Amino acid sequence: MDNMNIDHHISQQFNVELEDLRNNVLTMGGMVEQQLTDAMTALVENNAALGEIVITNDYKVNAMEVSIDEECCGILARRQPTAGDLRLIVAIIKTITDLERIGDEAEKIAKMAVHLADLGDQKSPLDSLQHMGDTVRKMLRNALDTFARLDVEQAIETAKRDAKVDNEYEAISRQVITFMMEDPRIITRSLDIMWSARALERIGDHARNICEYVIYLVKGRDVRHTSFEQMEAEARKGR
Amino acid sequence: MDNMNIDHHISQQFNVELEDLRNNVLTMGGMVEQQLTDAMTALVENNAALGEIVITNDYKVNAMEVSIDEECCGILARRQPTAGDLRLIVAIIKTITDLERIGDEAEKIAKMAVHLADLGDQKSPLDSLQHMGDTVRKMLRNALDTFARLDVEQAIETAKRDAKVDNEYEAISRQVITFMMEDPRIITRSLDIMWSARALERIGDHARNICEYVIYLVKGRDVRHTSFEQMEAEARKGR
Repeated sequence: MDNMNIDHHISQQFNVELEDLRNNVLTMGGMVEQQLTDAMTALVENNAALGEIVITNDYKVNAMEVSIDEECCGILARRQPTAGDLRLIVAIIKTITDLERIGDEAEKIAKMAVHLADLGDQKSPLDSLQHMGDTVRKMLRNALDTFARLDVEQAIETAKRDAKVDNEYEAISRQVITFMMEDPRIITRSLDIMWSARALERIGDHARNICEYVIYLVKGRDVRHTSFEQMEAEARKGR
Repeated sequence: MDNMNIDHHISQQFNVELEDLRNNVLTMGGMVEQQLTDAMTALVENNAALGEIVITNDYKVNAMEVSIDEECCGILARRQPTAGDLRLIVAIIKTITDLERIGDEAEKIAKMAVHLADLGDQKSPLDSLQHMGDTVRKMLRNALDTFARLDVEQAIETAKRDAKVDNEYEAISRQVITFMMEDPRIITRSLDIMWSARALERIGDHARNICEYVIYLVKGRDVRHTSFEQMEAEARKGR
């Protein structure tokens, strides 16, 4: 009986640790979301000062990654988790890598914003880029939500949005090439727009990765490198 | 005494498992190296057929990542490693993510090679791009060597090469922009060159990441997101 109580206590303490870990991941996710939002605002509003803030704040995202990583290794060493708990830790180790890289891409967009503002470009960038920014922000938000609620159906739906993001990227890319051919004087600023679109496209990939980790975590099935159809079929199977 | 023998046996078996895991990572590294080499050859020689082979073979790299990932999770669950063994597993989980992404970048270069060959471009791309390809290939080779030999000094030296890669990328980027401005008709093919350079630059980043995991693995110190000077100082401290 004593033993059981101890077990129970240990397990509760372990639950607290896991909950804390999950919360930290979500906090990091929130930071990254904010970085992306600010970077896009800086780009759309030609706001170099806001762009600089995003660049400066990237170290906070990095520090968060290192600290969560240490937390994961601590739990692996002390708790020696198995099955679902182990999958949670592994999924988190991977998720924070993707979050950190999303932070890097947001920083790149912020750099483009600063550069464009330096060029004295008063025109807003393409509407289509703003639209793509909104699509990607929503996708990231949904991916984090998916992680918070461990919702496989939402993970599938969100991962599928990546195809839409890729299409938007292709369209912007074609548009920008046309502009550059028509007026070579705008090549430099056009490339900034293209790099920003590219960064958004990468963020879509990372958000998709996070969704795939959620499916792995809940279902124990690795759905990376599969088509959307396979992912759906695998994820919807019972375990 | 019996117990000791059993321990010894278990530990030997565990050693075999870890050795097998390390070998698989190196095999995956070799595959990725070959993909990069072939992609660059396809680009330099306008060899669309070779480019297609690289694109087709990417699934092998992906499959390898999934299989090593499962091996890692199996060892974590069965062996519940601590200290250095645990760090090895965590470092491997991260390393294979970077290797897989290097494979993706090699695939992108192969796609550019196919696209350029389709454009009927008979000219070789920039010498500077070939040179950058050599620099990055050498850096990747050294990063894998570093992992094989767990050589911290070489890890530091190799990670530092990333600055050289970044400089080469910047130079190519400026060169390509100049070409595009001079002759807007070559914008499409110039962008292929620029994307290829960008992919090489990303591969340099991933190779640097691998070096940083080796330092973490050997020294137990996380040197990500630090300057080269800090990395050196941290890595050379005794534990």
